[in-house]
Amino acid sequence: MENFKAYLKGDQFAACNGIALTECRPGYAKAQVTIDGRHLNAAGVVHGGLLFTLADFCFAAAVNSYGNVSLSINASISYFAKSTQGIITAEATEISRDNKLASYDINVFDAERKLLANLKGMAYITKKSIAL
Amino acid sequence: MENFKAYLKGDQFAACNGIALTECRPGYAKAQVTIDGRHLNAAGVVHGGLLFTLADFCFAAAVNSYGNVSLSINASISYFAKSTQGIITAEATEISRDNKLASYDINVFDAERKLLANLKGMAYITKKSIAL
Amino acid sequence: MENFKAYLKGDQFAACNGIALTECRPGYAKAQVTIDGRHLNAAGVVHGGLLFTLADFCFAAAVNSYGNVSLSINASISYFAKSTQGIITAEATEISRDNKLASYDINVFDAERKLLANLKGMAYITKKSIAL
Amino acid sequence: MENFKAYLKGDQFAACNGIALTECRPGYAKAQVTIDGRHLNAAGVVHGGLLFTLADFCFAAAVNSYGNVSLSINASISYFAKSTQGIITAEATEISRDNKLASYDINVFDAERKLLANLKGMAYITKKSIAL
Repeated sequence: MENFKAYLKGDQFAACNGIALTECRPGYAKAQVTIDGRHLNAAGVVHGGLLFTLADFCFAAAVNSYGNVSLSINASISYFAKSTQGIITAEATEISRDNKLASYDINVFDAERKLLANLKGMAYITKKSIAL
Repeated sequence: MENFKAYLKGDQFAACNGIALTECRPGYAKAQVTIDGRHLNAAGVVHGGLLFTLADFCFAAAVNSYGNVSLSINASISYFAKSTQGIITAEATEISRDNKLASYDINVFDAERKLLANLKGMAYITKKSIAL
Repeated sequence: MENFKAYLKGDQFAACNGIALTECRPGYAKAQVTIDGRHLNAAGVVHGGLLFTLADFCFAAAVNSYGNVSLSINASISYFAKSTQGIITAEATEISRDNKLASYDINVFDAERKLLANLKGMAYITKKSIAL
Repeated sequence: MENFKAYLKGDQFAACNGIALTECRPGYAKAQVTIDGRHLNAAGVVHGGLLFTLADFCFAAAVNSYGNVSLSINASISYFAKSTQGIITAEATEISRDNKLASYDINVFDAERKLLANLKGMAYITKKSIAL
């Protein structure tokens, strides 16, 4: 798992946007970001693209942590509340997994644990091992 | 429309990630990004979060260009092919619009016009005008 | 609530397909169907359209039970396992609700409580009261 | 193709609800239903479950017509307008297909060609041939 966590540090898009993995095990992951000006949209609120990226990175960590390369094929996000600051946390939990497909539920919370968004993601599990 | 385009330059998350609006009118928008290292995930391919952000920004431009603050409430993305380089383009077209809700179809293409992803987005149209 | 339950019996598409409401309160509902031949697709398994209809009816019951006409605007279903017989149950729980929009998570189980499908639904809450 | 069309007549859930296939070829299908009382919900409008079932049946016809058993894994429907009567038509077109996954866009129209709903569906293509 330590090698896998090191591998995920190579996710430059996540890293460049300040997103960090805080927990990870097969079927579960948690990731966080501390909001600053670069995360806002033109209306001055946290960009939907950042919330999606945080949730998607968390999903990728959880689903790939079994060791097989797993590709997101579909993801649906719903937004419930807006945010402008603080630490935002995503948590990914596994809903279903067989030898081909896995489904995850990823919730995104603000620092007061208010639900900001939910992502449902589906991944295709390849037979290829992740090169750690 | 020029004022609105200037307003969208205030989208710091898009700007910080190299995303630029190239066309915009009520119900339609086009946005682009030129891929470099910061856009890649740990597997070395373009991050799903970047494709989503590009599509979402394009959607926001098209749906807000009528002048009312319009909030994305739900977005579903499907991925069809991966990419590692070049110019990536998103185009948003309007599927439906009434006085409360609008639906958009956003396609994301690589430089060879291969379809990389499709986003379906739904927005809630508020009665508030965008402060330009 | 008794009047509302009587009102839902007027859902002819649900009734004609053998779907019945078993529990209902604001923000929560449960519905069931006992599978027989008319619910199967050409491959002889329970039709995705039936699972969707069961989940959607359950969602409608939960979201409308507050008394305002609430219209489903978007629903995303994922399938995890197939089924061919027995009692199938859907349960709808509320994820989020403000004065305009409500989001629900609806899980569909077979008789052994295996998760067959998940529906995420979003509804627009009108100001109109349901005519009971 | 004639054998495959005969096979689809074995879809009892579609048949019992009055849904008929009108065109079908690899990657494309069209299906129709004529609305009557049994298709309505408690509010007296066409049930979302019927629109979904019509679209889903049309999707299944198009994606399975290549000859391999193809299973819907995810489907997202958005509703744009309501309907109470007449002939409703769904058309499924292929967006993407590789050797594992296929994505379809299914539009649902009323008799005046007004867009009622859109379904985006993703299927997993098995290596098994359909037993015709």
